[in-house]
Amino acid sequence: MVERLKPEDRAAGLQDLPGWHLCDGREAITRTFRFRDFTEAFGFMTQVALIAEKMNHHPEWSNVYRTVEITLATHDVGGLSSLDLKLAGSIDKIAGDA
Amino acid sequence: MVERLKPEDRAAGLQDLPGWHLCDGREAITRTFRFRDFTEAFGFMTQVALIAEKMNHHPEWSNVYRTVEITLATHDVGGLSSLDLKLAGSIDKIAGDA
Repeated sequence: MVERLKPEDRAAGLQDLPGWHLCDGREAITRTFRFRDFTEAFGFMTQVALIAEKMNHHPEWSNVYRTVEITLATHDVGGLSSLDLKLAGSIDKIAGDA
Repeated sequence: MVERLKPEDRAAGLQDLPGWHLCDGREAITRTFRFRDFTEAFGFMTQVALIAEKMNHHPEWSNVYRTVEITLATHDVGGLSSLDLKLAGSIDKIAGDA
């Protein structure tokens, strides 16, 4: 059973994810990625989709041409869990900067 | 060169796309699709992505688990063009209801 992160664990986790920040007015984290074009952006999304499905933990995300905005939270705990930090780390690796 | 649709052409085009409606405060059309689960939703997005890239006309879209919200507009004309109606029709076909 996944648990909501304590504030200190959340802060520690976010220190390892410098591209991500907390959303305003909601316990969730977000990051915007920009690519060369749509093909590269959607290729990235496809890789993230496969990881997310494997983790059974899915992003909320939007795409406009070469920009992808991702928000992560854990519905079952009403906020952030270790799953969000783990998925954010995997996403950064796919984006190639971690 | 693609052109902005005249109001009467826009209205006629939308009559053939009953699932789509005009956005509030913006000349664009939008439709929300719901699927069984994330895999089905992202599979749909992948098919749409390939068509969009082929047309060189890309959606603005978001996905939360099994829901996909799509907005179409033509940046170059500052509103709607025949490309949006064409892409909307193709998207409906992929979703299996047209």
